[in-house]
Amino acid sequence: MDERALKEIVREIIGTEQTLDDCAVLSCNDRLLVATTDMLHETTDFPEGMTDWQIGWMSAAVTLSDIAAMGARPALVLLAVGLDRGERIREILLGAKACCDSCGAVLAGGDLDAHQELTIVSSGIGFAVGGKVIRRRGAVPGDLICITGPLGRAQAALDGYSCYERYLFEPVPRVSEGERLASAGTSSMMDISDGLVLSLYDLLDANECGYSIDSALLPLLEKVPPEKSREYALFGGGDFELLFTCPPEHLPVPDLDSYMVGRVIRDHTVLVDGKVAEYRGYLHRWT
Amino acid sequence: MDERALKEIVREIIGTEQTLDDCAVLSCNDRLLVATTDMLHETTDFPEGMTDWQIGWMSAAVTLSDIAAMGARPALVLLAVGLDRGERIREILLGAKACCDSCGAVLAGGDLDAHQELTIVSSGIGFAVGGKVIRRRGAVPGDLICITGPLGRAQAALDGYSCYERYLFEPVPRVSEGERLASAGTSSMMDISDGLVLSLYDLLDANECGYSIDSALLPLLEKVPPEKSREYALFGGGDFELLFTCPPEHLPVPDLDSYMVGRVIRDHTVLVDGKVAEYRGYLHRWT
Repeated sequence: MDERALKEIVREIIGTEQTLDDCAVLSCNDRLLVATTDMLHETTDFPEGMTDWQIGWMSAAVTLSDIAAMGARPALVLLAVGLDRGERIREILLGAKACCDSCGAVLAGGDLDAHQELTIVSSGIGFAVGGKVIRRRGAVPGDLICITGPLGRAQAALDGYSCYERYLFEPVPRVSEGERLASAGTSSMMDISDGLVLSLYDLLDANECGYSIDSALLPLLEKVPPEKSREYALFGGGDFELLFTCPPEHLPVPDLDSYMVGRVIRDHTVLVDGKVAEYRGYLHRWT
Repeated sequence: MDERALKEIVREIIGTEQTLDDCAVLSCNDRLLVATTDMLHETTDFPEGMTDWQIGWMSAAVTLSDIAAMGARPALVLLAVGLDRGERIREILLGAKACCDSCGAVLAGGDLDAHQELTIVSSGIGFAVGGKVIRRRGAVPGDLICITGPLGRAQAALDGYSCYERYLFEPVPRVSEGERLASAGTSSMMDISDGLVLSLYDLLDANECGYSIDSALLPLLEKVPPEKSREYALFGGGDFELLFTCPPEHLPVPDLDSYMVGRVIRDHTVLVDGKVAEYRGYLHRWT
């Protein structure tokens, strides 16, 4: 059973609307609450060479990034840890707490269990700033496609460019960027994790419009050959930048670095330099 | 590293207060939000003979029961599922959704992953009724110790009393009971999962007082010999009843079946029929 078939079953049972974004959204008096959960396994989600502290950091980061991508402010994170060896828990929790602290969230509890392979599920809650969330749905033709930072650094590290290792091992959730974008008229948003192209296909799934990228606009990585840098940005994994669309008049967003890399188009397709982009990206098999 | 040592590390890092209850508590305007997460593995948490639908039901039930035990009303559940075989997802989600529906909660999303052993983490959010949560801490000497229903039925099913199978395979979270108890002056509460005695030791960990049970007051199970029935109630696993303490004048709670089984005492110990109770209960190894 492939991923698409699985997704169809999930949509049939819990509703398509509920599966389009990384967070569930719930009214909470006059506020909107967002909630999300992410499962990570040692062999598939944590690159070799990561310390336990970094594993903890990363586990919190994926959830905090999902909350940031809704334009919400993280409030708390819970960690369910299936431990292969008890000694690992201290560093894992310290790393997770450091990441939560850096985002203004509380590491508020969780569950401990024994497991053959280290398995961590982090769940988090946040609150929408200014009463609205930014969803994957919402782009309209003519909007610009932007990213909050250079892409491909985590993939570059995986490929041996050790100067980018921190981006791979200690990714920083774009929380303040997400908040600023939510109040700046962003029309749609998500966080990138498996490459720009796969993320655009995810957006395609939630919208009627399409996406056209001009690869010459992608910011290049220092010390990486330009062609490789573009390849990493389009198809590499591990980045935690935000991908968003907004009407041209809303750029630049005050106090925010962002890079315009393309335009939202009428045709329901993903183009890179005018050609339909290969459906390819990072497949969660760290090597 | 034993469980106690692990707990100490967790408490040192995230704070003792945060680890006393099954739920984290967060102020949310004038309301209190509770949040919880539970990790379940096929070999250790799901008794043999369970269908996938029942596995889904149980996965939601553990989280809904944790929310009920705070006297809160469940709002949403997220499910992170590490699947050994894709075909299982439909029945698991249908079971989880049925359990959520029965408790007025929404199955609002989650995460899917591949895993050698079926692993499910359910996380949930609820809101306190009437602005206050009931915690494990709060009992005072003189309070009565009560339960919301007969104990030992799940353990009886595990031991072959098939008339009790539904209690083992489709446990019902005591949501409306929890809400009623929260507004009825209950001084402390938790849900029972590994037997009455282990639960009392958990309460002991959060309180200055102690607990004295009169085993003659335990409701007996039909078709099970009285001695066995009491043994199941004290040390058996799988029950989802609520254990609570309250001042005598607050009993009976309107519209609620409950059984008084002992008294809160001054000495910091757990007694059954006047003797210190063996620290023994269900060890999460279903056979």
